[in-house]
Amino acid sequence: MPNSRIKQVVAACFFSYLIATPVFAGQEEFYQLLEILLQNGTLTQQQYDSLVAALDDSAAAADRDQQVQVKTEGGLEASTYDGAFSFELGGRLMVDSAYYQEDQNDLGNGTELRRARLDVEGVLFSDYGYEFGVDFGGGDADVKDAFIEYRGWWPTKVKIGQFKEPFSLEELTSSKYITFMERALPNEFAPGRHVGVGVQSRGDGWTAAAGLFGESFDDDVKDEGDEGWGVTGRVTYAPLRDDRRALHLGAAVSHREPDDTDEIKFNARPESHVTDVKYLNTDDIADVSHINLVGLEAAWVEGPFSLQGEYVAATIDRHAGQSGLDFDGWYVYGSWFLTGESRIYKPKSGKFGRINPVTDSGAWELALRYSSLDLSDNDISGGEAEQITLGLNWYVNPHLRFMANYIIVDNDAAADDAGDLAGDDDPSIFQLRAQLDF
Amino acid sequence: MPNSRIKQVVAACFFSYLIATPVFAGQEEFYQLLEILLQNGTLTQQQYDSLVAALDDSAAAADRDQQVQVKTEGGLEASTYDGAFSFELGGRLMVDSAYYQEDQNDLGNGTELRRARLDVEGVLFSDYGYEFGVDFGGGDADVKDAFIEYRGWWPTKVKIGQFKEPFSLEELTSSKYITFMERALPNEFAPGRHVGVGVQSRGDGWTAAAGLFGESFDDDVKDEGDEGWGVTGRVTYAPLRDDRRALHLGAAVSHREPDDTDEIKFNARPESHVTDVKYLNTDDIADVSHINLVGLEAAWVEGPFSLQGEYVAATIDRHAGQSGLDFDGWYVYGSWFLTGESRIYKPKSGKFGRINPVTDSGAWELALRYSSLDLSDNDISGGEAEQITLGLNWYVNPHLRFMANYIIVDNDAAADDAGDLAGDDDPSIFQLRAQLDF
Amino acid sequence: MPNSRIKQVVAACFFSYLIATPVFAGQEEFYQLLEILLQNGTLTQQQYDSLVAALDDSAAAADRDQQVQVKTEGGLEASTYDGAFSFELGGRLMVDSAYYQEDQNDLGNGTELRRARLDVEGVLFSDYGYEFGVDFGGGDADVKDAFIEYRGWWPTKVKIGQFKEPFSLEELTSSKYITFMERALPNEFAPGRHVGVGVQSRGDGWTAAAGLFGESFDDDVKDEGDEGWGVTGRVTYAPLRDDRRALHLGAAVSHREPDDTDEIKFNARPESHVTDVKYLNTDDIADVSHINLVGLEAAWVEGPFSLQGEYVAATIDRHAGQSGLDFDGWYVYGSWFLTGESRIYKPKSGKFGRINPVTDSGAWELALRYSSLDLSDNDISGGEAEQITLGLNWYVNPHLRFMANYIIVDNDAAADDAGDLAGDDDPSIFQLRAQLDF
Repeated sequence: MPNSRIKQVVAACFFSYLIATPVFAGQEEFYQLLEILLQNGTLTQQQYDSLVAALDDSAAAADRDQQVQVKTEGGLEASTYDGAFSFELGGRLMVDSAYYQEDQNDLGNGTELRRARLDVEGVLFSDYGYEFGVDFGGGDADVKDAFIEYRGWWPTKVKIGQFKEPFSLEELTSSKYITFMERALPNEFAPGRHVGVGVQSRGDGWTAAAGLFGESFDDDVKDEGDEGWGVTGRVTYAPLRDDRRALHLGAAVSHREPDDTDEIKFNARPESHVTDVKYLNTDDIADVSHINLVGLEAAWVEGPFSLQGEYVAATIDRHAGQSGLDFDGWYVYGSWFLTGESRIYKPKSGKFGRINPVTDSGAWELALRYSSLDLSDNDISGGEAEQITLGLNWYVNPHLRFMANYIIVDNDAAADDAGDLAGDDDPSIFQLRAQLDF
Repeated sequence: MPNSRIKQVVAACFFSYLIATPVFAGQEEFYQLLEILLQNGTLTQQQYDSLVAALDDSAAAADRDQQVQVKTEGGLEASTYDGAFSFELGGRLMVDSAYYQEDQNDLGNGTELRRARLDVEGVLFSDYGYEFGVDFGGGDADVKDAFIEYRGWWPTKVKIGQFKEPFSLEELTSSKYITFMERALPNEFAPGRHVGVGVQSRGDGWTAAAGLFGESFDDDVKDEGDEGWGVTGRVTYAPLRDDRRALHLGAAVSHREPDDTDEIKFNARPESHVTDVKYLNTDDIADVSHINLVGLEAAWVEGPFSLQGEYVAATIDRHAGQSGLDFDGWYVYGSWFLTGESRIYKPKSGKFGRINPVTDSGAWELALRYSSLDLSDNDISGGEAEQITLGLNWYVNPHLRFMANYIIVDNDAAADDAGDLAGDDDPSIFQLRAQLDF
Repeated sequence: MPNSRIKQVVAACFFSYLIATPVFAGQEEFYQLLEILLQNGTLTQQQYDSLVAALDDSAAAADRDQQVQVKTEGGLEASTYDGAFSFELGGRLMVDSAYYQEDQNDLGNGTELRRARLDVEGVLFSDYGYEFGVDFGGGDADVKDAFIEYRGWWPTKVKIGQFKEPFSLEELTSSKYITFMERALPNEFAPGRHVGVGVQSRGDGWTAAAGLFGESFDDDVKDEGDEGWGVTGRVTYAPLRDDRRALHLGAAVSHREPDDTDEIKFNARPESHVTDVKYLNTDDIADVSHINLVGLEAAWVEGPFSLQGEYVAATIDRHAGQSGLDFDGWYVYGSWFLTGESRIYKPKSGKFGRINPVTDSGAWELALRYSSLDLSDNDISGGEAEQITLGLNWYVNPHLRFMANYIIVDNDAAADDAGDLAGDDDPSIFQLRAQLDF
């Protein structure tokens, strides 16, 4: 299918339901009628002038700029035509089931509401915005993004509140748009959401973001002790950034000091969330002075094909002459849209976005991932694992997709959930997801 | 009051606030004026044609079908005129207080936010829908319906996500529309909401629904063990289904296997929720192989009078030659609208719906229920109870009602909350509710 | 700056974004054209009458009164033009950080989502309303206002559900509008939100409110015991109530009986919420018969200057001849808008409201507070504290403000968190807030 045809269909698909509230149909023709009636002598020049002036006033009073238009694509969007004020409500539902071909340990077949989330966002007085989301999938209420944003120095934006530290392409790509059901093993290193302040900007193909962060309330186990804090920065550059051809390169660093307990812990599920088993688990590491993270990212899109990979290294410094610890992980995956679509790279934010199927029967994507995480070093035996995932995605329409993942897990002997499980466990996993966002 | 008058008032009451956003008032008259001006020679045929063509284009551009209309009845509804996309936000508040005339055990007078719920739902691309509700009444966030729906095979619908298993007329009727403050004792058997897939259809007076379900996250006590699962099906038929005269018959079956623990438990409050006392309580029943449920339903509406009843039997099979267990329960109730309204039977879904009061002073309903539940068999002494409830409901308007229930409880000696309470406790209960939905 | 200029700017600022959905621009001119065409003989009287009649019908059909207008100021508001039905969705985000200059005990520097709240409210059938808000800031879902309201006896209103007991000017003023980041120490006495029924009314400068309350679910620790209950009433009078000059006087009383445990407890953070330390803590006081509260309020606004103060006394009666307990506290503060704005006193509800900055660079407010709380009497040594707070607020626009508070804490020896901390702790606190509401 030629590129132009695809673009045309995608555009049609995307814009067909972005329709504003009605405006006066016939206003222009009213002016034309008055013009004719003036010219054929039915109206005097005075009558004509008076009517046109009145109509002008009337049209001005109903000035489109400050009127509110309402849109729906399953959610809700209301905004003034000039964009100075807006409100948007959306959400996402992800319904999972998982079947574990167990080896040595129980993993627990079952079902799960992986995400059940409501998000609101808005703009006030043109320059100020907010985002606020809550996830209910885990059986309680978990605040996601909750920040205030200043946009007056566009394209530079300043954020205050809870949001994701700028680290890792896969972490920063919304769960609505990631290629596999769960992010890869090394995602355990990504700092994720904390309360803090951040600044981000962008230019011709590049983005940069940095921030100073405390902890999210979930981490704040000891309210009388000082919280931990971190600084994180990320830069990306896309030498290629066409619609169906892109090359993304990125690097990020993060420095974090733990809270008063001086303890940190890394642990990771086997890229499957129905189970609670976390084979890889360092347990609490004591006497931690600070953690440094380095992340490298690359992605390449060539029509229906794409490759993506990341490497993350974590270096932990400990007090009192104890040796440091070096953990690391990486993943790489390829994706192929059988139906010709292309992964949507967004050079303005340095991440990936929504897939718009070309045909009525939806888009089909085949993907293969290798991932690896090593949490063992010196006296800490958190374990090491390698996993291979085969994924098949069906994008029924831009807001609905079904996902199937088959995962082969290879754990080493130390991957025993800090001693709670048998090591060397090599199960395989088959899991399904239905996902709708609005 | 004659039927026709009632229908007229109900219709007026129902539709008066379903008003769309404004469309061009005067468009039709514009065409008429041009016609007249053509005929009396003020406009030439060419001028007329040109103006009409322009007006046609203009009207087409503001095509109503894809414009968004917004409605409010206290909540919010936005939909394109063609219905292909829509969004709805609503909710319910139920405020209870209960006074216990205690016999042997403390029950605890008090107040409660019985339900404080937000619901969103929507349609995308005509054929796809979702529902998502969260209840905050219990002090935490409790996900209710959370499913994705395919409507492309209308009237057959397929659901994926968390929703109610199709079992029991009273369970499936929304808490907004049930006749008494709490569902009857045998409701303890109804499987309720679980994560799964289901299909439902309907025809001339009949409905059918079936599904395969896992567990809700609340039940998933042991994440590393396999979840339980169940299959459930229900059919209903309404030989009579007029506006104020209906006869409903239904039957449902359910088969469920417990999770890895092989344990199940049935327990029930005395149709009052302010207290946490559950007289009837089997405690954990071990070594359960599976449970089979059978439910029978009937309801009859004759003008302001109605009758409704259900019988549910639960059969529990246990491993290792242990004897099976048979529990059952039933209820029957009558309702009389003193003000002439009629309970609203919905033959398309096989359940009851919203009451629309005929007069400005609202609708008054008197109701009487007998219910019974027996959770004792063989070695399990969960107890047996009979209860009689007198209910009075005042429907102030279609969205607001006040309820008063007086309940006489008759527990047997084994109804001791698995040994935690004195048996043979026979309290009476007076409870009130204020309920608003939007 | 003269008063008239300020009012003008405030009004412009406030109304500029309150714009309705479009209505037919040109309808009036259509009538005028027909009139002209009649007079110059282009239309016959019959043609004119017919067109005008059709246009009248068409305009009536699109009757503005029942159409829905949609507004956004970052949130969402939809209402019929006649106001009979409406829906509103809003929220607030408050992001805090605190730095403790510790003396004897750890307080725990850190960050916090102080409030992350969604609120919906609406009107149905003109006379009925509801409010429903949930806060997610604490890591769970905390229901705030959740009540049904009858407005048919305007200005008298009746409420059922969970809402604030009418006690204390600072408690009743929304957290969006309080002058300092946290309410003053004596706020610990204010009953706050409980489930109950209440009535409120108002007249020329006065307001009165009273209610009967149970407990909120958070307090209901023992579901089988009877809940506590209370009655509370408040009256206010404002001899001066001009736009920029107001004098407010108020008094409130409350009587509460504890639940079955006969225990109550008072404890208070040092006007800083990032820490969990509560220096002042009576621990559980046993054998309580009832508590009586008396509160006195006064506030005075004179242009950019204002003063506000409250005194609250709590008297606790105990069973079995044990001596009563008398606790009390008070605060007083002054505020000065450097940029000339005035605190907004709302005589109709007897509390303070939203600040609208006069200039584009926002409003700046300087404030100083003294507060004191004494929870020691007889055998109960809850401790006593005095605090001085210097506050600086920057209102960027009516919906966004930044706050900085510097607090000097002076605890006595008994202020030891019921023995868990060292007494005589005198830390100082510096804390910051970013706040946006929509």
